Amino acid sequence: MTTHAAVTNRRFVLASRPKGAPTAQDFRLESVKVSEPAEGEVLLRTLYLSLDPYMRGRMSDAPSYAPPVELGGVMVGETVAQVVASHHEGYVAGDLVLSDSGWQDYAVSNGTGLTKLGSMAKPSWALGVLGMPGFTAYMGLLDIGQPKAGETVVVAAATGAVGSLVGQIAKIKGCHVVGVAGGADKCRAAIDELGFDACIDRNAADFADQLATACPRGIDVYFESVGGAVFNAVLPLLNLSARVPVCGLIAQYNAEHLPEGGDRTPLLMGAILVKRIKVQGFIIFDYAPRYPEFFKEMSEWLAQGKISFREDFVDGLENAPQAFIGLLEGKNFGKLVIKVADAH
Amino acid sequence: MTTHAAVTNRRFVLASRPKGAPTAQDFRLESVKVSEPAEGEVLLRTLYLSLDPYMRGRMSDAPSYAPPVELGGVMVGETVAQVVASHHEGYVAGDLVLSDSGWQDYAVSNGTGLTKLGSMAKPSWALGVLGMPGFTAYMGLLDIGQPKAGETVVVAAATGAVGSLVGQIAKIKGCHVVGVAGGADKCRAAIDELGFDACIDRNAADFADQLATACPRGIDVYFESVGGAVFNAVLPLLNLSARVPVCGLIAQYNAEHLPEGGDRTPLLMGAILVKRIKVQGFIIFDYAPRYPEFFKEMSEWLAQGKISFREDFVDGLENAPQAFIGLLEGKNFGKLVIKVADAH
Repeated sequence: MTTHAAVTNRRFVLASRPKGAPTAQDFRLESVKVSEPAEGEVLLRTLYLSLDPYMRGRMSDAPSYAPPVELGGVMVGETVAQVVASHHEGYVAGDLVLSDSGWQDYAVSNGTGLTKLGSMAKPSWALGVLGMPGFTAYMGLLDIGQPKAGETVVVAAATGAVGSLVGQIAKIKGCHVVGVAGGADKCRAAIDELGFDACIDRNAADFADQLATACPRGIDVYFESVGGAVFNAVLPLLNLSARVPVCGLIAQYNAEHLPEGGDRTPLLMGAILVKRIKVQGFIIFDYAPRYPEFFKEMSEWLAQGKISFREDFVDGLENAPQAFIGLLEGKNFGKLVIKVADAH
Repeated sequence: MTTHAAVTNRRFVLASRPKGAPTAQDFRLESVKVSEPAEGEVLLRTLYLSLDPYMRGRMSDAPSYAPPVELGGVMVGETVAQVVASHHEGYVAGDLVLSDSGWQDYAVSNGTGLTKLGSMAKPSWALGVLGMPGFTAYMGLLDIGQPKAGETVVVAAATGAVGSLVGQIAKIKGCHVVGVAGGADKCRAAIDELGFDACIDRNAADFADQLATACPRGIDVYFESVGGAVFNAVLPLLNLSARVPVCGLIAQYNAEHLPEGGDRTPLLMGAILVKRIKVQGFIIFDYAPRYPEFFKEMSEWLAQGKISFREDFVDGLENAPQAFIGLLEGKNFGKLVIKVADAH
């Protein structure tokens, strides 16, 4: 293990809690010596770090479903890592694992929270199409959204990790699928690469009108991950008995104040009442027992070429803060993954 | 039938669409001759007229789940009526029926929408505990709310027709039940007569604090029929995986403008996301196939003395508008029913 003691672990810790949008100053890069794994432990080398919108919530100490990252603590995050040394009987050097080791080059683990990667064409898929984002898309759409053939499904963040899969699964189920994305390039890709029936640029001045035109029979399922202006445009288009799975609200994560103007809550509650709408938040961890079912079906769709999945790789751990800041602004195009190191 | 041709039918028609709270001038009392029932028709005499908050929606031409009452049209409403003359093979004079004949003394029907009253101790119960309000309480609480023993259920309008039953059913299911009502008398009755564990006066200056104190383990099910300030106080108390069946929003029916101040929608959506809350509107008509199941169980509870049901009778059709205006202000105490005539 002496080889590792000489190695430096770079890690990003939370330097300060953001006020509004996070800035580079909210993260601090530290360099420390790599710890030696003790008996029963493994040393992990991060290969891929997943960056996801939920991390914004962990940077805040507002009450949430998970405790916040401590000030000075390593930023949380899922990784695909390789075992580089093992004193744990369950692992040997070279094993690839899914880990929650966070924003750093190396981590020591006693095996808790590690999952050996099964067969998948690309290890990074464990952070995307076959991981949390894919599972979120699958369960949110199918279990809460319950789309029926011929219904209209609208999905926000249409080219993002979750949204791109929601729309493609909805197409497999025979729905009319309309995406919402930021910019003409993303909208074109949603149609050409992902097979959506339409995709509306949320930055267009007449966004609400375009959305209405693209949904001539209204909206039966709105897969919500954005909130804000997109939701306001969706609300009047929701049909009787519409379903709104809520997996994120990226447009409001950085908000410091309530939006100005009157309180629109009565409009939302009134629509829920009059149209018998179901709005339901969910966290994918609650669905853990159903992961195998998801994995099997999604793997089949991938093998059959029914699902395409775009990854947006950024090289170098040092670039994680800027990439994350861009994620919250919608700058990524596909699943954002930091490529930290090559496998050996 | 000549005996009936000499009889006058009084009826309330919609004179104007209310701006804000309805006033007496929005209703017009007309007197017309009673029509003769033709072959295949019956003549009905209204005994009881149900007044319910949903009628405010029908007075408006805003889009809703049901078409509005036409200007000059008879106000809609469920009634218990007696067949006074029948040219319909399914009915004989003297039959009691549940009807949608509206705010009037007499109506001619071809049988559509009529239901012969089965055995119940009081015919007016067909408009209350064994009718639409009871069915609404039962299905909203049990099918959407899904309360488990030991959970905390909060119900708005706790002494109203629906709320009083929601709370009592929740007690039968072993829940900690907290009502919200307007005034000390109603709160006392909710505890003493209905068996709630607590009931908070929504007019109290420290209403939100009192509600929090009465719900030391948070709120698992909030049965919503009110909206507004009550909902704002409930929102921060909702637990993980809370369920919010929405059957009405009486506090906002008369609103002409959005409430002032910032848009609280992000607070609601944020809570839905972080706490995996389900908010679901429903209309009892969607549950029609399950009425027999409800009727059987509620009848048993009534026979066993497990459910008490208070009716607030107002004598005379001419008093319907004032009684309805008072209903929207929360002046009734129990199910509001207009007693129009005695059975013969």
